Amino acid sequence: MQSRYITITDHPQGTPARELFELHETELAALADGEVRVRNTWLSVDPYMRGRMSGVKTYIDPFELNEPLQGAAVGEVIESRDPNFPVGAKVRHMAGWRDIAQLPGNQLEPLPAFEVPEQAYLGVLGMPGMTAWTGLNRIAEMQEGDNVLVSGAAGAVGSLAVQLAKAKGGTVVGIAGSQEKLDWLESKGVKAVSYKGKNAAQLTEALNEACPEGFDVYYENVGGICLEAALNNLRVGARIAVCGMIARYNEEAPSAGPGNLAMILIRRARMEGFIVFDHWANYPAFLEEVGPQVASGQIDYEETIEEGLERTPDAFLKLFEGANRGKMLVKL
Amino acid sequence: MQSRYITITDHPQGTPARELFELHETELAALADGEVRVRNTWLSVDPYMRGRMSGVKTYIDPFELNEPLQGAAVGEVIESRDPNFPVGAKVRHMAGWRDIAQLPGNQLEPLPAFEVPEQAYLGVLGMPGMTAWTGLNRIAEMQEGDNVLVSGAAGAVGSLAVQLAKAKGGTVVGIAGSQEKLDWLESKGVKAVSYKGKNAAQLTEALNEACPEGFDVYYENVGGICLEAALNNLRVGARIAVCGMIARYNEEAPSAGPGNLAMILIRRARMEGFIVFDHWANYPAFLEEVGPQVASGQIDYEETIEEGLERTPDAFLKLFEGANRGKMLVKL
Repeated sequence: MQSRYITITDHPQGTPARELFELHETELAALADGEVRVRNTWLSVDPYMRGRMSGVKTYIDPFELNEPLQGAAVGEVIESRDPNFPVGAKVRHMAGWRDIAQLPGNQLEPLPAFEVPEQAYLGVLGMPGMTAWTGLNRIAEMQEGDNVLVSGAAGAVGSLAVQLAKAKGGTVVGIAGSQEKLDWLESKGVKAVSYKGKNAAQLTEALNEACPEGFDVYYENVGGICLEAALNNLRVGARIAVCGMIARYNEEAPSAGPGNLAMILIRRARMEGFIVFDHWANYPAFLEEVGPQVASGQIDYEETIEEGLERTPDAFLKLFEGANRGKMLVKL
Repeated sequence: MQSRYITITDHPQGTPARELFELHETELAALADGEVRVRNTWLSVDPYMRGRMSGVKTYIDPFELNEPLQGAAVGEVIESRDPNFPVGAKVRHMAGWRDIAQLPGNQLEPLPAFEVPEQAYLGVLGMPGMTAWTGLNRIAEMQEGDNVLVSGAAGAVGSLAVQLAKAKGGTVVGIAGSQEKLDWLESKGVKAVSYKGKNAAQLTEALNEACPEGFDVYYENVGGICLEAALNNLRVGARIAVCGMIARYNEEAPSAGPGNLAMILIRRARMEGFIVFDHWANYPAFLEEVGPQVASGQIDYEETIEEGLERTPDAFLKLFEGANRGKMLVKL
């Protein structure tokens, strides 16, 4: 059986060029004992993958050039030599960026049983959702009534973060770009602030108007002027959960950081970076809390879908244009 | 009785000019019931006072123009209408920047009874010492064996921080400027690194040579390139206690922050600002632990002394030139 997959041919400098990505095909070996063959139905593309393209070991191994890229995917077992995963089983695994995955059964997870579309386990009930929940609850230690600011608020992570924050009863402000995203945020009772066309001082002012008392929690997905404006609007004792800084992932050279970092001192604030994989032991607790709310429709989520394996690089690159609302997915 | 005191005539922009400070004299009112008159013997000047000169309320009220400045002082009671503080009692209070202080007894503290010179209660056993201890233990949660980096390492706060860190058994690196300071650090078993003549990349390299495994704790007194170089040398799970950023206190406009703030994310690090006054309830615990070690000579401290009330502004301004080793004091 053939498997088609995507590779990169070089480590990108700055924004990856589309030409860096190549589609290849290979004949799969016969299934070894314990192995499973999966027809992927949905692939995830996520901002953190940019880091794995740089050839540098950070918290996760870099992608290898000319080898299949990796990432979360869901699919259906089509051939199996692992009794835990019979043919027809729906599974999640990390052998994405390809149509047919072949891997040991111990690298598969069965999909949980909530009544949600299977791709939800790549988004609101997958790594991005777990990231939102972990950042707010475990890192920022969000309390009832906290005023919460979220950047990238209509993205895969941010769109759950604002809803979880909203349920705690304080003022929730979301920063986003397009009118569509701002409208979606407002429909969820979130005060939406656009960063478009604003400098840090103007964004500072807009956040102050949206929440004059300031923020107890800032959920950071973006960096750049969002961070600078957020620092200017912290309450005493504020907590910043640093989930990502997508504004900077494609920089060729580091650009200057916020000039007002001393606000950390003045507001006795805490800023903490985290990687969701360190907290994966809490995934069952997350699912138990958030799963039923997604199934019942109490928590909403959006998807932006590209179709076809060959569009996976395009889906990935759109993340950095802010083109996705909610989770960016590739449907096979 | 006359009291001589120092005022500022305007809010400084940038580095305060010497001419901004004026010496005045006033006839004190007769002592009211409950009041005490103190002949100050030692005055403290501290970097945080720069913030109080800006006319802006931060975590502490701004200084009033043309009124006596305030700050820690120790002295001896020379007249008293508070039975808790008889004539001859040694006390500490916040009515510094003057020779004779007159204030309600409830604003005085008796000096603790350790066998140390009285001015130690303005330094190693006063606010700066408490700041070092709080930052390491309560904010950075220093553990046995942690590798610890301290900027401003030979200053009032840093010089205790390096010794407390050293006692925990890990590698301790101190950043300082002058050869005298570096020598003092080395004499305490601290690896001394000079920031002088280095850019952030060179300081990064020097810190890496001093402690290739990286730092679990960074005690931040300085900001600027020290922070940038420290961020490049964090271990996973590192904690940064932000006590001060003296490099920036005299800036007229905020300059850019570190370009590598994303290291907070990559290293899953935590950065937390604190104000020692929020933690003052722990002062007895601090004294109990550190007081005996200072009295026995196990913990060392340095002083830089100016003489005479009229020299107080000069002592203060020297803080920003890094001219002090250990605690900067004015002896009256």
